[in-house]
Amino acid sequence: MKRSAVLLVSCPDAKGEVASISDFVYRHGGNILHADEHADGDSGLFLMRVEFDAKDFDIDLSQADLADFQKAFSAIAEQFHMTWRLALSSHRPRMIVFVSKYDHCLVDLLYRQRSGELACEIPLIVSNHADNQRVADFYQIPYAVVSITQDKKQAAEGRIRSLLEEHQADFMVLARYMQIFSSDFVNRYPQRIINIHHGFLPAFMGAKPYHQAFERGVKLIGATSHYVTEVLDDGPIIEQDVVRVSHRDTVEDLIRKGRDLEKVVLSRAVRWHVENRVLLYGNKTVVF
Amino acid sequence: MKRSAVLLVSCPDAKGEVASISDFVYRHGGNILHADEHADGDSGLFLMRVEFDAKDFDIDLSQADLADFQKAFSAIAEQFHMTWRLALSSHRPRMIVFVSKYDHCLVDLLYRQRSGELACEIPLIVSNHADNQRVADFYQIPYAVVSITQDKKQAAEGRIRSLLEEHQADFMVLARYMQIFSSDFVNRYPQRIINIHHGFLPAFMGAKPYHQAFERGVKLIGATSHYVTEVLDDGPIIEQDVVRVSHRDTVEDLIRKGRDLEKVVLSRAVRWHVENRVLLYGNKTVVF
Amino acid sequence: MKRSAVLLVSCPDAKGEVASISDFVYRHGGNILHADEHADGDSGLFLMRVEFDAKDFDIDLSQADLADFQKAFSAIAEQFHMTWRLALSSHRPRMIVFVSKYDHCLVDLLYRQRSGELACEIPLIVSNHADNQRVADFYQIPYAVVSITQDKKQAAEGRIRSLLEEHQADFMVLARYMQIFSSDFVNRYPQRIINIHHGFLPAFMGAKPYHQAFERGVKLIGATSHYVTEVLDDGPIIEQDVVRVSHRDTVEDLIRKGRDLEKVVLSRAVRWHVENRVLLYGNKTVVF
Amino acid sequence: MKRSAVLLVSCPDAKGEVASISDFVYRHGGNILHADEHADGDSGLFLMRVEFDAKDFDIDLSQADLADFQKAFSAIAEQFHMTWRLALSSHRPRMIVFVSKYDHCLVDLLYRQRSGELACEIPLIVSNHADNQRVADFYQIPYAVVSITQDKKQAAEGRIRSLLEEHQADFMVLARYMQIFSSDFVNRYPQRIINIHHGFLPAFMGAKPYHQAFERGVKLIGATSHYVTEVLDDGPIIEQDVVRVSHRDTVEDLIRKGRDLEKVVLSRAVRWHVENRVLLYGNKTVVF
Repeated sequence: MKRSAVLLVSCPDAKGEVASISDFVYRHGGNILHADEHADGDSGLFLMRVEFDAKDFDIDLSQADLADFQKAFSAIAEQFHMTWRLALSSHRPRMIVFVSKYDHCLVDLLYRQRSGELACEIPLIVSNHADNQRVADFYQIPYAVVSITQDKKQAAEGRIRSLLEEHQADFMVLARYMQIFSSDFVNRYPQRIINIHHGFLPAFMGAKPYHQAFERGVKLIGATSHYVTEVLDDGPIIEQDVVRVSHRDTVEDLIRKGRDLEKVVLSRAVRWHVENRVLLYGNKTVVF
Repeated sequence: MKRSAVLLVSCPDAKGEVASISDFVYRHGGNILHADEHADGDSGLFLMRVEFDAKDFDIDLSQADLADFQKAFSAIAEQFHMTWRLALSSHRPRMIVFVSKYDHCLVDLLYRQRSGELACEIPLIVSNHADNQRVADFYQIPYAVVSITQDKKQAAEGRIRSLLEEHQADFMVLARYMQIFSSDFVNRYPQRIINIHHGFLPAFMGAKPYHQAFERGVKLIGATSHYVTEVLDDGPIIEQDVVRVSHRDTVEDLIRKGRDLEKVVLSRAVRWHVENRVLLYGNKTVVF
Repeated sequence: MKRSAVLLVSCPDAKGEVASISDFVYRHGGNILHADEHADGDSGLFLMRVEFDAKDFDIDLSQADLADFQKAFSAIAEQFHMTWRLALSSHRPRMIVFVSKYDHCLVDLLYRQRSGELACEIPLIVSNHADNQRVADFYQIPYAVVSITQDKKQAAEGRIRSLLEEHQADFMVLARYMQIFSSDFVNRYPQRIINIHHGFLPAFMGAKPYHQAFERGVKLIGATSHYVTEVLDDGPIIEQDVVRVSHRDTVEDLIRKGRDLEKVVLSRAVRWHVENRVLLYGNKTVVF
Repeated sequence: MKRSAVLLVSCPDAKGEVASISDFVYRHGGNILHADEHADGDSGLFLMRVEFDAKDFDIDLSQADLADFQKAFSAIAEQFHMTWRLALSSHRPRMIVFVSKYDHCLVDLLYRQRSGELACEIPLIVSNHADNQRVADFYQIPYAVVSITQDKKQAAEGRIRSLLEEHQADFMVLARYMQIFSSDFVNRYPQRIINIHHGFLPAFMGAKPYHQAFERGVKLIGATSHYVTEVLDDGPIIEQDVVRVSHRDTVEDLIRKGRDLEKVVLSRAVRWHVENRVLLYGNKTVVF
């Protein structure tokens, strides 16, 4: 991969934003590789993603706190009231995978990461069951079992928070993790917890969505990957997909077909997150 | 089209049903063109569709009441407690199309019927607006305007029932018809009213589903064709499909993309109904 | 629609292009609504589409030859060796539709144009058959019959060229037009003739693609819309799509399913062309 | 799984076939679970698949050569000139997987088999490279490396044939196996070698199909699973699927997206083969 940087910007829509940002990159020796922007009429928000080759960039990007960049970019950022973030391709974000018993999404993510499809590190797998230790071993990734019982939820979440800190987690992926975090926990990690729901949201929220879909007699079933927020199954949707079913499919067939959906949908969402392609506006996402 | 017949059967699952039915057809000189069956584990129901070439069939099928067939088939029907129906390819069912202002589904159905894709007659179009008279004229189909106001709903439905009787309607298609029939009206025509809902049911029921989908930030939008029952948007689903959308799509884009979906989904449902491919079990459909 | 303008640029990839273009728009009072760019590694080409609100633009865009804009933009254009074009939303391009006997694509395009989905004019329909006169009349569009026989092809093409000139055609759409233009004719209208091929190119080139697909036993059939070039079925592809088929589908079913594909694929390609979203690089297209 | 049996029949189309077969099953105490048939107009062939619950079947199905069944069914089989086969759910077919370096299809098949999705045994993996030994070890499956060089092809194929015999192979799956078997080898195993081609056949036959697709600028890429015959990439197609691509996708992106396609398409084909759902007629397949 080239030594590139991604600048993500979100601000009120105004004239001159594309020009100011692209001129800034150009003036400092960056070569724009991809530029994408979106102006949302309803919220009056402007969102932009600029990926540039930083080989000849004249601002020092090696500082951990990017102080020089921050200083140089501050005039533009202030003028347009920007919320912004700079991500370097040299930094591989650290992803913690959470799993319960069903292992298909876990196995899929581990395979993709190892084969180079996901440009991230996986320093740790967390589970409420011991079942998937052997897979973790195969990929030589530490595997922490944290039991969660209703009465000791707070303690368990405290233990998880310690693990996240210890392993310097950048974000979490709930790969069919059958536990629901408390609001307090969720709110500490905004846009940093990705879930896969095995239904086409907002249809079939909650438990056993394939059984719900079977009962209703739908002709397509879906899966949805979204950021986790306080409200169950209500966070910003990153990706969805569907597959056709018929009267010949039993609930077991729906579950089987759904596994393929879940893997593909979750892995796309994770890849886009890792590549800094996802921006939020309200409860919705832009995927650049 | 060949001179063929379709036998539709629904009964409790039991041994010997396929053998008895196919033997009956064979013994009377019919040649089976297609046979499809489904045994539903949950309800214990057996459903079958047999299409056979009736050229050399030795039972008279020209009687309006099919009395000879009924007599011949009664032993099997009684033995297995069958609900059954025989449809002849020589009979083209009579479809009444209901429409309000949006004309895309109407235009699509009329075109398909004229081009031979739908083996039915369209003796009448009913609307609560005069807008689509010109399209009806182009296809030389009578066009009845029946205004529906809240306080005169009963009278309007009475008028519609007279029209249905007068035109010997076999079934109705609500092609983006923006009126809701009373339970009393709906219950008179079980499995005989087909609707197109411009959303992926059971998500986005009720009004303005594209606006709802836009607000929720889904990545796919859908359309659903179903039989109309008492409960709004809850009848047995015949067909559904989806199309991909992104943050770049406005509500207007969703509506535009949705039009293509609605046309395709509704026309498939109507064709399957016309070809006697749809059987009900509970609130679900088998499409053979 | 807003009073907007679309600037399309194609040039060798170099630093500062996004900055220069967006700065130019900004400096002259334009507000960028959408910006898209693509750098093609293989050919070293940079392609960009900028749509901007021209309400407060300080360069006169009302001149037929856009002389003032040309003058103002020339410095940048020359610096980066740009091929460029400016399209105004106030100009509705003039599309001539060619059709033979099959009318489904014609009917579909006329409906979409009238309903506002296609922001173009249709001053003329050209056919080698009289069959579709009635549809043209319904939409009140002139209909010219130009017979094409092998020995009088040159004369027929001469007649068509006169018609195109007379009706000030901007581009042509071959909506299942069963004639093949000469190289001489095609070369006069580069990227200005859109065709729909009823097969998934490059599979099933040439005649009777659905029969070819049926013989081969494929499980999906497709349709392809492309710009017409000298070599049959080899021009740059604008859009493709597929639909599932099975052993139960006869050739007639393939043709029926194909009609829906052809309509959707062709209409998307036409809309993107009309909205100035399609750029060429080599024998390929970017659809912004 | 229930103790069920699948009867597969292929014969010239004639009256009474469905009746004779279903009556035979019924008379001997079988309960039909699924029945599917297809009459192919072009070839005049009749194909049928009947799955029945054999719990109360009064013919002994425990004989290795099914002699009693053969004897009982022979009258019908001879009357209609049937080619037929009986498969028992109690028999799990033995699948040998062939692989080269790319491991995604191998890993996918092994995972699905272990999770119960594929009702077969995998007694052996054959490869021309040592690379995938570790995956085989994880799943505790023997892994045989058979190098194939141009001048020693005959010897290598002899070695493979011995391995197949030794492991009592029922069929082979080429999971991105980069070697081409000789005609002599292929002809020994009709309808018993399943391949995955990483292109949408018949487009992009032969080597590097993703590169070919990239060069041509297609908007969808595909994968095709088919039975291997003498002619390269020309055998009967079992399953195909496609995924959308755009100008933003590099060849590497096509390869990445293709991997997901290949896994899904191949695993569907293998599952249908294992469940005895695939019948041949000419160079085409029926998938019941």
